[in-house]
Amino acid sequence: MLNAIDKKVLKEVADLEGMPKGAYNIRKNGKLEGREVSANINIETNEKGDGIIIDIKPGTKDESVHIPVILSQAGLHDVVYNTFIIGEGSDVTIVAGCGIHCGGNASEGHSGIHEFQIKAGAKVKYVEKHIAIGEGSGKRILNPTTKVFMEENAQAQMELTQIGGVDEAKRVNEATIGAGSVLLITERVMTEKEQSAESRNEITLAGTDSKTNIVSRSVIKGSSSQDFYVNLTAKAKCYGHIECDAIIMDNGINQTIPALRALHPDAELTHEASIGKIANDQLMKLMSLGLDYDQAVNRIIQGFLR
Amino acid sequence: MLNAIDKKVLKEVADLEGMPKGAYNIRKNGKLEGREVSANINIETNEKGDGIIIDIKPGTKDESVHIPVILSQAGLHDVVYNTFIIGEGSDVTIVAGCGIHCGGNASEGHSGIHEFQIKAGAKVKYVEKHIAIGEGSGKRILNPTTKVFMEENAQAQMELTQIGGVDEAKRVNEATIGAGSVLLITERVMTEKEQSAESRNEITLAGTDSKTNIVSRSVIKGSSSQDFYVNLTAKAKCYGHIECDAIIMDNGINQTIPALRALHPDAELTHEASIGKIANDQLMKLMSLGLDYDQAVNRIIQGFLR
Repeated sequence: MLNAIDKKVLKEVADLEGMPKGAYNIRKNGKLEGREVSANINIETNEKGDGIIIDIKPGTKDESVHIPVILSQAGLHDVVYNTFIIGEGSDVTIVAGCGIHCGGNASEGHSGIHEFQIKAGAKVKYVEKHIAIGEGSGKRILNPTTKVFMEENAQAQMELTQIGGVDEAKRVNEATIGAGSVLLITERVMTEKEQSAESRNEITLAGTDSKTNIVSRSVIKGSSSQDFYVNLTAKAKCYGHIECDAIIMDNGINQTIPALRALHPDAELTHEASIGKIANDQLMKLMSLGLDYDQAVNRIIQGFLR
Repeated sequence: MLNAIDKKVLKEVADLEGMPKGAYNIRKNGKLEGREVSANINIETNEKGDGIIIDIKPGTKDESVHIPVILSQAGLHDVVYNTFIIGEGSDVTIVAGCGIHCGGNASEGHSGIHEFQIKAGAKVKYVEKHIAIGEGSGKRILNPTTKVFMEENAQAQMELTQIGGVDEAKRVNEATIGAGSVLLITERVMTEKEQSAESRNEITLAGTDSKTNIVSRSVIKGSSSQDFYVNLTAKAKCYGHIECDAIIMDNGINQTIPALRALHPDAELTHEASIGKIANDQLMKLMSLGLDYDQAVNRIIQGFLR
């Protein structure tokens, strides 16, 4: 049964007011809380029992799967291995995410290892939100890993967000992009206080005319720190772009380390990075419209992370 | 005595038709070929005898030092440690460079380790050109290292160029930039055939209001390869920009790996990189003006490296 806290967490990570429509799998404190399959989308526990397999039939259109995780048990460090098989020519949305509610002083953590097999011509939008709330003093740890294998002419859009409250995050994204396929990754991470987040991205443009655009947006408040790594390797005629923007507030620190490896003569790789405080003229403009300093800063941060 | 080949090399690396005006030190095949000092610029062999110390008096204005190196002895691998002391408030130009003429099948190499102590308020322009010529089949190896220590309110402009013919290069630039000081580095490297060049840059923005702009321009022809690394560390309120552009021709490969480390909340670091072939529309434009394909490519490359 979902209690009031669970419902709050579900709302935050998956924008759900109750049980979702269509296929879903809700995991709470390491156990299955509810599951629904559809005619085209099957969900079953994997052989080892340490995760689920989401199997989407070829040609499935305009369907969605929700697989949120709720963690509210002090001391629990949940690890889950999920596999998504996204059938040829399908067009689906997957909403994942993990919400931690910490009520005590023991740490809580979740590591979700998500593997995507995206078949030829398939199109998938993957939305993953991470948040931690609660009055407890225990550390909240979230370590998501996504491994993406794209066949030909597939499209994947990954929206990866860590909204706040997470004390430690080790984020890993790996992808191999086949011929004619396009991968868009947008990662937004906000840290504050003494929090730290690390994001490691290992992306290979493997097939002819493969494309990727990797966008990282970081807001680093308090004394928090964020490190962002991308290793973008081009092995074919391809196009890849990386864009890293970090706003440093208070005493935040940031390291941004992209590697562009053009191992094919027809590779085209570009990168832009910008690390710094909020531009003063932006602040002044908003304050001249009647916002006070904090409101103006908040408005800019919200816009930046949207 | 300088022979016809030496003179050709001197012309290429230091734009000299004969002996330079002002202070100079010419090194040929590991030995002193000629030296001249001025009232304000002293040059002497260091204690160990493995290099020279160029001592520029405080307040020296509009003077220059030429310290070219010529290498034409098969099998010789020359290593030299030079120290530049650039006195307070001076404003000078230093022209270095190494030319290899290879006539046989034994390899030839030069490693120049140059240390710059740039005192408060000094301004220096350092021009270093590397080239290798000759009909011999021996490998031509050039490994330049520059170590720059800048006090407060100093300015340094480093123009580092490897024009062509160099089979292997391991280039290293290290710099520590003091308060109010500005370091501009422009590195231009052209490789072809089976050549390889690696450039490692370790730059620290150490003082308040220190600034740096690091520009890398690479042209990678044939089956050559170039790797470019920058480690830009910001430890103060400062501004740093890195710009890496690589043109890949034929089967060239390139790896560009900048690290932006904002370790101070008032650091502002930005980066732009672009790796790829020459844009087709640029070529078309020049060809529509009457150039043939090769001429158009050459025109673009020359403009890019200028």
